[in-house]
Amino acid sequence: MKLVRFGLKGAENPGIVAADGTIRDLAGRVPDFEGEGLTPAALDKIRAIDPMSLPAAPAGARIGPCVARIGNFIAVGLNYADHAAESNLPVPKEPVLFNKAPNCLAAPNDDVVIPPGSVKTDWEVELAIVIGKTAYHVSEADALSYVAGFAVCNDLSERAWQTEGTGQWVKGKAAPGFGPLGPWLVTPDEIADVQKLDMFLDLNGKRVQTGNTATMVFGAAYLIHYISKFFQLDPGDVITTGTPPGVGMGMKPPVYLKPGDTMRLGIAGLGEQSQTVIAYPG
Amino acid sequence: MKLVRFGLKGAENPGIVAADGTIRDLAGRVPDFEGEGLTPAALDKIRAIDPMSLPAAPAGARIGPCVARIGNFIAVGLNYADHAAESNLPVPKEPVLFNKAPNCLAAPNDDVVIPPGSVKTDWEVELAIVIGKTAYHVSEADALSYVAGFAVCNDLSERAWQTEGTGQWVKGKAAPGFGPLGPWLVTPDEIADVQKLDMFLDLNGKRVQTGNTATMVFGAAYLIHYISKFFQLDPGDVITTGTPPGVGMGMKPPVYLKPGDTMRLGIAGLGEQSQTVIAYPG
Repeated sequence: MKLVRFGLKGAENPGIVAADGTIRDLAGRVPDFEGEGLTPAALDKIRAIDPMSLPAAPAGARIGPCVARIGNFIAVGLNYADHAAESNLPVPKEPVLFNKAPNCLAAPNDDVVIPPGSVKTDWEVELAIVIGKTAYHVSEADALSYVAGFAVCNDLSERAWQTEGTGQWVKGKAAPGFGPLGPWLVTPDEIADVQKLDMFLDLNGKRVQTGNTATMVFGAAYLIHYISKFFQLDPGDVITTGTPPGVGMGMKPPVYLKPGDTMRLGIAGLGEQSQTVIAYPG
Repeated sequence: MKLVRFGLKGAENPGIVAADGTIRDLAGRVPDFEGEGLTPAALDKIRAIDPMSLPAAPAGARIGPCVARIGNFIAVGLNYADHAAESNLPVPKEPVLFNKAPNCLAAPNDDVVIPPGSVKTDWEVELAIVIGKTAYHVSEADALSYVAGFAVCNDLSERAWQTEGTGQWVKGKAAPGFGPLGPWLVTPDEIADVQKLDMFLDLNGKRVQTGNTATMVFGAAYLIHYISKFFQLDPGDVITTGTPPGVGMGMKPPVYLKPGDTMRLGIAGLGEQSQTVIAYPG
């Protein structure tokens, strides 16, 4: 299934993409896509519904974030060997974990706001994992059974705040709007092999990131296994799994986002995001 | 007001501590203490209720975490100069921020479980700030007006996972139960000066941490101001503000928690927590 949320910001309805590509409205039929609304039982209830029996969403409806709320927003750093190289950092021996703020969750096609004071806002196309079942100390072999679905994430990052200040990376990973997720939450049965997905990001129409999840240092199943040794993963937690080469920080000279820039990014089978960068309106 | 949650784990009722020290039941009268249930409007509704008009909680009722759910669980590192010294780390020039997992929120007096594989679980008594109003780029002068209340937090930490592995501290700060919060959520009007609060932690009846919020490197108002430059703080977000000297890691030789240990910790005006350490039952 391709699950989706549509409607005005903060008032989205849950929906499903029907076989004909139309979005069908699940409001009132199922809980919104967060927490218990993402469990296997909840998804099975959606599976039992014929999408074409549901009302269609209004044509041109805005697409919201594909989950309503994130519990823990976990991110993995330096998880593509070539990206580590462009960051002048060694490939890690074990996954590097950090957090994004749960409330930086954003819609896939809304404008990206450069935060006040930022001079180094950067892009990162990533495969995100949405958890559907509580996982604590789970094996790598079982790990993918805890997944509600996969989605595209743009792990927006303020590089000065991430790396030039005191301490931990979260400062540069958490500004409002820094976590566009979607357009779709794609259930694992639709993905033949999550470690063979092409991914890309275009800046102003020019390809800057090209990758494939085949080159992840630590794959999705290992990451869930590994992270579950430190955290309890709950339904609605999100893990964004790192970015391939081609971020602005790695260019010579570095390139950072400015108002008017456009990004288009996508992962095979998971859809595309399209964002325009704007200045902070405040 | 001293707000409290009582009852069985996962099924707590919101309540209030009456002038006679009894817990009074707010269930059905107000939303639970999370998100919108922590805003100034929500707290004003509670203020308008005479606690003695409410039913009393059952005698000896279990005390739950003083909030029902944490949005973003932010922590501040090395925020007492003497603790930085015992950690062999310099006093930071700006606040060191990291995350705890929102779902490591725990009740103040429940058993603390040593996570599987942990050999260096440690204690940290801390002043926690619970946010009641959305804050983004707020001034230090206004910052305390965004606070719903203050509470005691034990920022439990696995030192090997925090500092000996690859990358960021969150790995050692996020295990299930690593965030006891409470017993009370104390509204700011009850605290004459949040920067003049004595705090302590006893391990097995022996005082190991003694401090006062007067020696914080960055005070509560500055922290809210500073953090609000990087994150949007929302109602139900929690900032735990660092620990004074006396953690196990700083002892010579280091001392870590083992099954059977007991902790008692408290902050003047915010109440006390009491925990027994147990092995992971799995």
